[in-house]
Amino acid sequence: MTEQSTDPALKPINSGGYVYQNFDEFSSSQDCEPRLQQLRTLLRQKQLDGFIIPRSDVYQGEIVAPGDERLAWISGFSGSAGFAIVLVNSAALFVDGRYRAQAKQQVNEKLFSIVNWPETSLATWLTEHLKVGGRVGFDPWLMPYSKIRQISDRVTSIPIDLVAVKQNLIDQIWEDQPKPKITLAQPHNVLYAGETHEDKRARLAQDLIDNGFAAAILTAPESVAWLLNIRGSDVPRTPVAHCFAILQASGKVDVFSDPNKFEHLSTHLGDDVKLSSSDNFLTAVKTIDGATLLDQDTVPFAIHDACQSPVLIQDPCLLPKACKNDTEIKGAIQSHRRDAVAMIEFLTWIDRKKAGTVTEIDVVQQLEAQRRKDPMLQDIAFDTIAGTGANGAIIHYRVSSLSNTRLQEGHVLVLDSGGQYLDGTTDVTRTIAIGRVTPEKKMAYTRVLKGMIAMSQLRWPAGLTGRDIEAVGRTWLWDGHMDFDHGLGHGVGSFLGVHEGPQGLSRRNQEALKPGMILSNEPGYYRDGEFGVRIENLLVVETAEPPPDGDLHREMFTWRTLTLVPFERRLILTEMLTANERNWINKYYDEIKNTVFDKLSPPAKEWLRTVTQPF
Amino acid sequence: MTEQSTDPALKPINSGGYVYQNFDEFSSSQDCEPRLQQLRTLLRQKQLDGFIIPRSDVYQGEIVAPGDERLAWISGFSGSAGFAIVLVNSAALFVDGRYRAQAKQQVNEKLFSIVNWPETSLATWLTEHLKVGGRVGFDPWLMPYSKIRQISDRVTSIPIDLVAVKQNLIDQIWEDQPKPKITLAQPHNVLYAGETHEDKRARLAQDLIDNGFAAAILTAPESVAWLLNIRGSDVPRTPVAHCFAILQASGKVDVFSDPNKFEHLSTHLGDDVKLSSSDNFLTAVKTIDGATLLDQDTVPFAIHDACQSPVLIQDPCLLPKACKNDTEIKGAIQSHRRDAVAMIEFLTWIDRKKAGTVTEIDVVQQLEAQRRKDPMLQDIAFDTIAGTGANGAIIHYRVSSLSNTRLQEGHVLVLDSGGQYLDGTTDVTRTIAIGRVTPEKKMAYTRVLKGMIAMSQLRWPAGLTGRDIEAVGRTWLWDGHMDFDHGLGHGVGSFLGVHEGPQGLSRRNQEALKPGMILSNEPGYYRDGEFGVRIENLLVVETAEPPPDGDLHREMFTWRTLTLVPFERRLILTEMLTANERNWINKYYDEIKNTVFDKLSPPAKEWLRTVTQPF
Repeated sequence: MTEQSTDPALKPINSGGYVYQNFDEFSSSQDCEPRLQQLRTLLRQKQLDGFIIPRSDVYQGEIVAPGDERLAWISGFSGSAGFAIVLVNSAALFVDGRYRAQAKQQVNEKLFSIVNWPETSLATWLTEHLKVGGRVGFDPWLMPYSKIRQISDRVTSIPIDLVAVKQNLIDQIWEDQPKPKITLAQPHNVLYAGETHEDKRARLAQDLIDNGFAAAILTAPESVAWLLNIRGSDVPRTPVAHCFAILQASGKVDVFSDPNKFEHLSTHLGDDVKLSSSDNFLTAVKTIDGATLLDQDTVPFAIHDACQSPVLIQDPCLLPKACKNDTEIKGAIQSHRRDAVAMIEFLTWIDRKKAGTVTEIDVVQQLEAQRRKDPMLQDIAFDTIAGTGANGAIIHYRVSSLSNTRLQEGHVLVLDSGGQYLDGTTDVTRTIAIGRVTPEKKMAYTRVLKGMIAMSQLRWPAGLTGRDIEAVGRTWLWDGHMDFDHGLGHGVGSFLGVHEGPQGLSRRNQEALKPGMILSNEPGYYRDGEFGVRIENLLVVETAEPPPDGDLHREMFTWRTLTLVPFERRLILTEMLTANERNWINKYYDEIKNTVFDKLSPPAKEWLRTVTQPF
Repeated sequence: MTEQSTDPALKPINSGGYVYQNFDEFSSSQDCEPRLQQLRTLLRQKQLDGFIIPRSDVYQGEIVAPGDERLAWISGFSGSAGFAIVLVNSAALFVDGRYRAQAKQQVNEKLFSIVNWPETSLATWLTEHLKVGGRVGFDPWLMPYSKIRQISDRVTSIPIDLVAVKQNLIDQIWEDQPKPKITLAQPHNVLYAGETHEDKRARLAQDLIDNGFAAAILTAPESVAWLLNIRGSDVPRTPVAHCFAILQASGKVDVFSDPNKFEHLSTHLGDDVKLSSSDNFLTAVKTIDGATLLDQDTVPFAIHDACQSPVLIQDPCLLPKACKNDTEIKGAIQSHRRDAVAMIEFLTWIDRKKAGTVTEIDVVQQLEAQRRKDPMLQDIAFDTIAGTGANGAIIHYRVSSLSNTRLQEGHVLVLDSGGQYLDGTTDVTRTIAIGRVTPEKKMAYTRVLKGMIAMSQLRWPAGLTGRDIEAVGRTWLWDGHMDFDHGLGHGVGSFLGVHEGPQGLSRRNQEALKPGMILSNEPGYYRDGEFGVRIENLLVVETAEPPPDGDLHREMFTWRTLTLVPFERRLILTEMLTANERNWINKYYDEIKNTVFDKLSPPAKEWLRTVTQPF
């Protein structure tokens, strides 16, 4: 059931300004057929048998600019991961489990067959659909070297040529392709960054010297943003300035971008950071003399190809960026307190609404309006997920004017949102009961909550990765023969990407957890076509103090919880909680009251007092 | 404190026969100096700069025959993992964390420097100790191809030659090297194996055909034992017959060994299993025409070298061997019931002994004598670990006449033992309080027990590996700032290796758990120089039935506990147990009483009744 909002009181509070989230349907497959014809004409002209169209841009980020939405343009699929291969007589869209339902809705399956990826690899599909000697083009700036290498390693049963094309074929036929926005980069104040870029450059340069590198090439804008203490707004939600950079072993940095973005920052950047046009980047890469560090996962094929002595390891900014310093942690604590005010004001508001009077879009707008009261807010951290009823079971649900659904009696609403504040990035999920809900929903919610508490309380030995401890957040669901099909948590940046590596709490994650890393802890439960539940707090890794009877020689870590928002009392089956869990919640509520209460409006104070009665 | 047994009543019950375990000190470093001189003379003759001496034999098994104890012969180190490199002017012993204390005791550090491995890799050490063009010999039958490949891949900074030598240099200088024992292989009755070797060969052959293989080379005697339903006694503890085999895609098998071991088995083996002398093996390998499956981890360099079209994947017997069939599971259940009788009779016996009157050797002998009452027992599964007081903190403790210690008031005794029965292999650890013990020991024991129960009760989604769930057995220790430095559990064979891959409950394990796999669940706690605690049950993976409110579509697994021995009531802090945990123990005790009680002696019945009072 999809409906328009009808409540006139639900205008954004700060409605004069720019409202971050919109509710348009971004993508349509109606033009895909003629576009495919154009592409195939071009394939024949270029003597190619096919072309690979990834979702990514040259920076391999999660969010891309409108002009980089090549995959949506050719296929209609607007998800944030996947790729297409267009051959002369067939075409396929490769998407993982999270996006299969969405792909089926958005894509014309007469034009694109939907392939389950990674179960079916690109290499397997290519060998089944091409003849010996088939030539498949790809854009060497959009495809990481590692992906191309992986495909060529696996295409073994018949020889197929992967051909790097000079100009992206989509760009050659996309007439009204949006141009990149030129936005001005901003300095990120050391009051929030906690370390000057001079110091960051010096310590990374020392690492390069110690390991025999002449330079490191940084192709992730988040890395450059962290290293140089700059932020930008080239794409929504992630405050980066699109650019590449070369960090020399001397500590000097060359930034390659549209010079207009950076030239006003000369005071901030100083003499050791040189600005250059993107056009000069490849020449600069070619002339590096000596071992050159490239990120093993994301470096574009074109850059690897241009490099004289490439060494593929991890981007040297990733780990120091992930381990927040004391200033960044203090910023995280402060921004989470302010974010909690917005969330609690929102929860107070919705608590007074009757079932059937509010839609998902109303929820998104009201919550955004609450966040926008804080002058430190620069953007929302991602499009708010507000899924009620069956929409709550769609893990990556984005409400549009077509899907918008009214919150009805008996629904539970999954509300996953966050803010980009100057001093930190937040990401919080609460699940809200609308009227009276069934015991099965309460049971699922309570199991999810128990898992979230178990992970929040965990103490674990130094050296373990997210993979090694992730089960702790799931065992209460497993015990009920239940589970959820996403990771328990992801890394979060400091006024940067809300999804940040290398840290993570998932089965794929192999990075040892370290103090200062911020991660989400977000178990959930989803019953297809019926309802969803998710609870999410952000946590920061801390060194744990050994008690007198512990292993005093053993280094162990634990979490500090950053998020400060009450749970949904009406969904908790108190009898399923242990004394220890009830005690944890009571202490958590004490902390919320101690840190947030004074900043709330009178009705929100009243609401908070009511919902945080001790268990 | 080390003492001799003084209690004359402690002779083994069945003392007329062969007693499995002895208490000799196996190794001594006193002859190592002249042996090293001989080896170095030989190195010069062969124009080599060094020679690698691994602990392994040609089969890469955990237990080797006396004539294969080359590492102990040259270095004095008798641990079950490690290797040495002898250069012309220096020598090093490489051992991992489990064996460092033992190596320091056994090895003359003037002759061998002890290197922390894998922290320092062989490749790193070689490049630091050799000049450009250095030549290091190795025995291509003892070194797996994967290890040699790994070393050569890492020796990058200076070129070093790894040279396969024709005859092992140690064998050339070891004058009284014991000859391999020729013992007769025995058929393993299909009443215990549950599947004929004809059926096993047929289904593995079909897999070879489906994957385009001409043959598979089996270099692990456990694999041949499983495939052909044979057992042997070429080494103690693991009932294998040493041999190699080639499984053809036709389903026919060629076995290469001393023909005397097998020729009496012609009726059992039938016409499709041909026996051949070991001397013919390499020729047979060389003449295989077509893709040949070799085990990626263990295949000796010499075999890989001889093979025309080697393909390195997993030994095709490993997974089917690990997933026990219904007959093997029934055998495991039966053998564990009989093993429980031996354990409970032993526990009754020791419960009546006063502190200070019994030694570790007494414990080993009394327990072995109890096991030997069962005519199905073929051997003990490994040398019993009986460590009291500070010896309990030595994870791989083996009592010798020199180390033998009296069980004193206030000690806890770690007792880890098992039997090789015709119908199954057992492995059980119980920790026993001697008199009154301190609260800190009880606290450690209770945390270990809580972890063991949590893992025993676990239900988890299909597809997960041991690594993904291992934390569940540790979180109660972590919560007290405690941990233990070994895996939570290992795979166990069916009247085969007590350590069996590919399944395992450890951070290194990447194999998805499957129904029928048997694993140990053995959390522990060790305080160096003070005490140790370990509790171990064997578990078998089963498919879990979904309850009506679970995810009915989701395949999940759980455990059935095989081991049936009570815990140490005097070490349990009952107030630390949840109602759920107490309930689990009570049900476990009911099962012990229902299945074992009738087979016990009157005193053991009385003891069992007392210690299994409900919690």
